[in-house]
Amino acid sequence: MESGTPGGSGPAEPGPRLRGLGGALQAAWASSLSGAQAQAEGGCRAPAVAAVLPAGGSGERMGVPTPKQFCPILERPLISYTLQALERVCWIKDIVVAVTGGNMEAMKGIIQRYQHKRISLVEAGVTRHRSIFNGLKALAESQPNSRLSRPEVVIIHDAVRPFVEEDVLLKVVTAAKEHGAAGAISPLVSTVISPSADGCLDHSLDRTKHRASEMPQAFLFDVIYEAYQQCSDYDLEFGTECLQLALKYSHVKAKLVEGSPDLWKVTYKRDLYAAESIIKERISQQMCVVMDTKEDEEHVGRCLEEMLKNELNHVKVTSGRDLQQVILEQCYNFVCVNVMTSDFEKTQKLLNVLDESNLSILYPVVVISVHFLDYKSIPFGRKMEDLMQIKELAREVKKRNILLCGLLIYYPQDEQKLQESLRQGATIIATLIKGRDSGLIGQLLIA
Amino acid sequence: MESGTPGGSGPAEPGPRLRGLGGALQAAWASSLSGAQAQAEGGCRAPAVAAVLPAGGSGERMGVPTPKQFCPILERPLISYTLQALERVCWIKDIVVAVTGGNMEAMKGIIQRYQHKRISLVEAGVTRHRSIFNGLKALAESQPNSRLSRPEVVIIHDAVRPFVEEDVLLKVVTAAKEHGAAGAISPLVSTVISPSADGCLDHSLDRTKHRASEMPQAFLFDVIYEAYQQCSDYDLEFGTECLQLALKYSHVKAKLVEGSPDLWKVTYKRDLYAAESIIKERISQQMCVVMDTKEDEEHVGRCLEEMLKNELNHVKVTSGRDLQQVILEQCYNFVCVNVMTSDFEKTQKLLNVLDESNLSILYPVVVISVHFLDYKSIPFGRKMEDLMQIKELAREVKKRNILLCGLLIYYPQDEQKLQESLRQGATIIATLIKGRDSGLIGQLLIA
Repeated sequence: MESGTPGGSGPAEPGPRLRGLGGALQAAWASSLSGAQAQAEGGCRAPAVAAVLPAGGSGERMGVPTPKQFCPILERPLISYTLQALERVCWIKDIVVAVTGGNMEAMKGIIQRYQHKRISLVEAGVTRHRSIFNGLKALAESQPNSRLSRPEVVIIHDAVRPFVEEDVLLKVVTAAKEHGAAGAISPLVSTVISPSADGCLDHSLDRTKHRASEMPQAFLFDVIYEAYQQCSDYDLEFGTECLQLALKYSHVKAKLVEGSPDLWKVTYKRDLYAAESIIKERISQQMCVVMDTKEDEEHVGRCLEEMLKNELNHVKVTSGRDLQQVILEQCYNFVCVNVMTSDFEKTQKLLNVLDESNLSILYPVVVISVHFLDYKSIPFGRKMEDLMQIKELAREVKKRNILLCGLLIYYPQDEQKLQESLRQGATIIATLIKGRDSGLIGQLLIA
Repeated sequence: MESGTPGGSGPAEPGPRLRGLGGALQAAWASSLSGAQAQAEGGCRAPAVAAVLPAGGSGERMGVPTPKQFCPILERPLISYTLQALERVCWIKDIVVAVTGGNMEAMKGIIQRYQHKRISLVEAGVTRHRSIFNGLKALAESQPNSRLSRPEVVIIHDAVRPFVEEDVLLKVVTAAKEHGAAGAISPLVSTVISPSADGCLDHSLDRTKHRASEMPQAFLFDVIYEAYQQCSDYDLEFGTECLQLALKYSHVKAKLVEGSPDLWKVTYKRDLYAAESIIKERISQQMCVVMDTKEDEEHVGRCLEEMLKNELNHVKVTSGRDLQQVILEQCYNFVCVNVMTSDFEKTQKLLNVLDESNLSILYPVVVISVHFLDYKSIPFGRKMEDLMQIKELAREVKKRNILLCGLLIYYPQDEQKLQESLRQGATIIATLIKGRDSGLIGQLLIA
């Protein structure tokens, strides 16, 4: 099929554009063209891309009253994770979300609270196809107060597929530019069968010859918009597959792109459990160790850092010397070692920095305030009493989505026993980070 | 299609059989027959049923080195959960598991450790179909040392579908007895498409006319055994669908039975996460409160019990007065209130009872030892020191799969403050039970 005309003319600007916004898209798009094509296309300018996200579903398969796209994961609605996945792709200019009138205010609240950008809301239709059509209309027609403009390529994605990555978005957009339409697919997990009218097996399909159609999909805007304009009420009511509309009405055979298992759709309650575990795992890959002293290598805080590195081999342990950098890298786990003072001075400073950073807007940040107990200098009970103020502190920072726990590590003279204490401490730290459970905030654990 | 001949003759024995083993199967089977059929069948005797479980897969889609059926969930291999689901159905006489030679010893170890019954092992083939065939052969041929006998109906299930319930097993067996073959199905989550040779969309399938074929399936033994005996090497190498074999070689059109979403197959890593969450949720539905006193209604332990009932509205809170009965009901969560003594006397007694019961063989049992702190009579630090022996105790019972934590609840004179302490205590108890995290054993949490 013919590729669409580029959305504008003028000479190609490969140098600066490749380094600027949309560089990845630009590069993929350039490499997808042969030299002759590139000339015919008038260079290799990256297309303008928007996304439409139908989010009007009722989630009846979930078995819970809240529509699944609004179900909370770590207290944040699922759809916010999907928006985050799309908006971090800088070459997607606009994201149009179709929600029902009843959820419009809630959706505005979500956008504000989680500081989502480049989002426009439209009213959902009663079916998925009608919602998508409403989104496309908003992009096609220049409304007086709208900042939306007609894109060259439009991505269609699901609100309940939060783990979409830039590379698959890039693949479907590049393929759509070339073929007019493209969609992600995955292997079938179960054999598909066709029942007869009496509820018996008529035939089973060859698994190797079929695929599951997933999201995202992408289209030249004109291809999918014309398909929706032409399609019947029956299609709009009972259809589900955009690739099929493009085939039927615009005669465009979509290119199929192998997707990753991460693209799966949150459909049942078990999928919410899986999504929560995946998110927890992803934000537990890195921890930062902050210390209240710059003492030598033999220092107990340094020993704990070494122990964490040895015991938690799936976790990247970073030193907190350049805290701003660590925060920029989106590390959501902090271990604050207090040796010099018997209170929470260093922990309090860390909490202040985290608070100013807005790091905890999207995910709960775990902070573990570590203290050491030397029986010789202070009895256990006294030390515990001194540290109980952590309960109050934890309650305060919980309001800002920071989960604070304390950890008191026994510090014996015997080197072997110390190593054992530190090892126990590392296990408890790993447990707290992995669980990320707000029910344990303000607790003082003992290793 | 004709139903198979019952495995034996003789008069029907509806009374005693209905009340005995296999009563549910007997009743379902009886009700599935019309009066005339029942006469023709010579009564309504329930068929002899066995199950075959292919477990030779390598789990390559999981992305982990361990085959998925052996991946641990709460430290127990997935396949053990599936065996448990099958063996609690008393009318399944034999369960034949096909495992590779390399996993044979590990599998024997699993059967012994988790005390599985009615299991026979056979060697897996290189494909799923070959493994199933090996299982069927073991049931068909009377080996000298085998206790297996040829069943009338055979269930085929997957090792990686641990949540199969008796009712769906009953449905497929009953339908197989009538139709010769039957299998569970579910609605398609994604649209299924057929790609063309060049990787583009050829056509998409109508979602309303297709279903995903799930497990369990059931067959009259002769129907499926003959199909396997006749089928080609190509079928055995590349086929996956037993219903298709029954259709092709035995000309039996399988009855399709709507399954529940619980039947899904653990395929990807996210499915392991989901399975773990589902299992944790299932064993956290009930908790038992045990007290070291029989004091009046105003007693603080009773107040805690009331608070747990009010705050945790999804959890059934049981009194521990008849502990043996509670254990029989498979309650895996215990809250032990110690008021009369300042040590762990009552908790220790509870731990001894649990240990004798074997309750913790299949699931980790959570025990929370609750103590109260009255500042007037004893300072906080002293109380903490007294209770630190819990670390040692917890390490000891962990060996028996019991997860012991302590909870110290502040007991102020002020009624409102006491209620607040108890509410915090209830939250912590709920968190510990839900998380079931062995990294927190021996900790003394404070409310």
